Amino acid sequence: MSKTVKRIAVLGSTGSIGQQTLEVVRALPHRFQVIGLAAGKNTALLARQIDEFKPDFVYRQDESTCLADTKYETLSLEEIACHPEVDTVVIATSGKAGLSPTLAAVKAGKNVALANKESLVMAGEIITSEAKRNGARILPIDSEHSAIWQCLSGETQPATRIILTASGGPFRHYSLTQLNKVTAEQALKHPTWQMGEKVTIDSATLMNKGLEVIEARWLFDMPIDNISILIHPQSIIHSMVEFTDGSIKAQLSYPDMRLPIQYALTYPERLPNEQLPRLDWRQIKELTFEPPALDTFPCLRLAIEAGKKEGTCPAVLCGADEIAVELFLSQCIKFTDIARLIERVLEEHKAVAHPDLEEIMAADDWARERVRQLATGESLC
Amino acid sequence: MSKTVKRIAVLGSTGSIGQQTLEVVRALPHRFQVIGLAAGKNTALLARQIDEFKPDFVYRQDESTCLADTKYETLSLEEIACHPEVDTVVIATSGKAGLSPTLAAVKAGKNVALANKESLVMAGEIITSEAKRNGARILPIDSEHSAIWQCLSGETQPATRIILTASGGPFRHYSLTQLNKVTAEQALKHPTWQMGEKVTIDSATLMNKGLEVIEARWLFDMPIDNISILIHPQSIIHSMVEFTDGSIKAQLSYPDMRLPIQYALTYPERLPNEQLPRLDWRQIKELTFEPPALDTFPCLRLAIEAGKKEGTCPAVLCGADEIAVELFLSQCIKFTDIARLIERVLEEHKAVAHPDLEEIMAADDWARERVRQLATGESLC
Repeated sequence: MSKTVKRIAVLGSTGSIGQQTLEVVRALPHRFQVIGLAAGKNTALLARQIDEFKPDFVYRQDESTCLADTKYETLSLEEIACHPEVDTVVIATSGKAGLSPTLAAVKAGKNVALANKESLVMAGEIITSEAKRNGARILPIDSEHSAIWQCLSGETQPATRIILTASGGPFRHYSLTQLNKVTAEQALKHPTWQMGEKVTIDSATLMNKGLEVIEARWLFDMPIDNISILIHPQSIIHSMVEFTDGSIKAQLSYPDMRLPIQYALTYPERLPNEQLPRLDWRQIKELTFEPPALDTFPCLRLAIEAGKKEGTCPAVLCGADEIAVELFLSQCIKFTDIARLIERVLEEHKAVAHPDLEEIMAADDWARERVRQLATGESLC
Repeated sequence: MSKTVKRIAVLGSTGSIGQQTLEVVRALPHRFQVIGLAAGKNTALLARQIDEFKPDFVYRQDESTCLADTKYETLSLEEIACHPEVDTVVIATSGKAGLSPTLAAVKAGKNVALANKESLVMAGEIITSEAKRNGARILPIDSEHSAIWQCLSGETQPATRIILTASGGPFRHYSLTQLNKVTAEQALKHPTWQMGEKVTIDSATLMNKGLEVIEARWLFDMPIDNISILIHPQSIIHSMVEFTDGSIKAQLSYPDMRLPIQYALTYPERLPNEQLPRLDWRQIKELTFEPPALDTFPCLRLAIEAGKKEGTCPAVLCGADEIAVELFLSQCIKFTDIARLIERVLEEHKAVAHPDLEEIMAADDWARERVRQLATGESLC
């Protein structure tokens, strides 16, 4: 077993994935050195993390307050992502803020442990081609994509189908009428996963699964038509891969993000970590499966359609969704308005094929603004 | 994709696995050439197989009848197994008749596609060490061991646990009183697998799963204490492997032996074969799991104990089981007598540690004779 210490930078260190990444580092202290930390508004937690890990490089969005007197160099997200001393960059920032540092990291040929969905959804074509050109390796941190990646290990031929599993969220069997009355508080209670607010709402609308379809398309070079969605409420099977002979491999574990995070950080090795729970088969009586309800959860259909159209459509999907979720969380719009507004914006959008980064960002900006306009126009906000 | 034609010999070509092996060959005619066939008493089928595949070498137990006028050389099982022109030997003979050709094949450094359980159960230590010494590769054909093998693919570290799944057989929830009354006809109706008579009865007693534990111990160098049994009545998950980080991989498919046979023959490639069914997730609503009932199915416990004791104990287990199953099928003894007689013979046996082949065969002979004596002594036969 190689004992090399990997030098890692964690962008988004105070978020859910960022904190769990640091838990993995704490559990395997001889294998990792945190040399970069970057966070948004949670300055108090960032200060404690700086105190504990003593990174060389720090980015903080809010520079107004003083931090601990540990010495570090202040850099931008992009500068940390491509810094020569960094081996692996963990992109755990949420939203489109992750796109630019992801691009910087792949251009610098880094190992990029990627939890940020928007990077691949909005700019999958650019990021994967830059990664290929520069020898960067994208190590997925999403539990589903990590499962697929683990199942593909050692196979000499491409898979023929990816089966993305989905918990189905808290409203799995709700009717449209019931979904109309759903509150933000209800939507924030996910049955199996502890996650940030945005991704929890995206899980309740199934938009999250739609974004994962687009990510999988780029990560594994798999046509969207060969990616299936299967509702699996127990969240034990994290995804499956079918091969040319009909054999399927699945990856299983309790829902705990530390496992895919650790796998991305230690790959191709696996390391023992007593904090990671083992499946207890005395407790697991059944694993159940059902098809997704595309009619009651139109976000999934919208994402699949946008993913197939490619170009700027996925960026419009992302931007529109981010604002729609914001408006729902601030109680301006109903749960069912999220999909309705996104669909309307996607219909209005004039797509650009093979866009550059500027065109992608412009499409995203336009979609955000357009959702706000539509909501205001309907006197929702 | 390499287009080399593999030259294979099928020992036990008229049995269930042998016939399915030839089905795989028929489906992939450009990849395989059958140059050896060997069969027991089913001369009529063997004659048709010789007609179709025109092998260079043939072994037949029953040489009294004339076969088709195709020209071939008559050889012994061992001579076919180690013949220089054979690339892969499929050992599909049942019972201890598989042991000697398996040993000949591993000593000749062949690829040995192994369906015969007794080889590894009785002489696992000898066969695996000879395979290592001579660069032979043992390619498991059992669905469970194939599943484990597929899940281990690409992993850089040994697994920490093997979870062997079992359908539980037709009497899964029977009480001991109910098992006492079970007929051979009932026991031969397996709920999920179509197999030969001996292995079907072994599935009903769970002896089959016990033999698989011992096989897994040798195939994957895994301590028996780290091999768990999980009853999974749907037979969709064929086994699972747990790794040091707690991640589990599983292999899934409908119960169809052609898949593990094909995987063993095409390894490390996978090839498309339209005859192999794809899992239809619209039909699969649940996969269920329960612990095995060791009290009502003592054969499983006996096999695990014999596997842990090693030496000649597994050979005694095998020999005693083969005769006990024979006596049950000919309605001499009750279903529950199978385990009782095996247990008694194992208790009487004076085990030899690290036995040579002769000692193994002697232990097996003794066990067979002793079961017959016990049954006669009790006036069962």
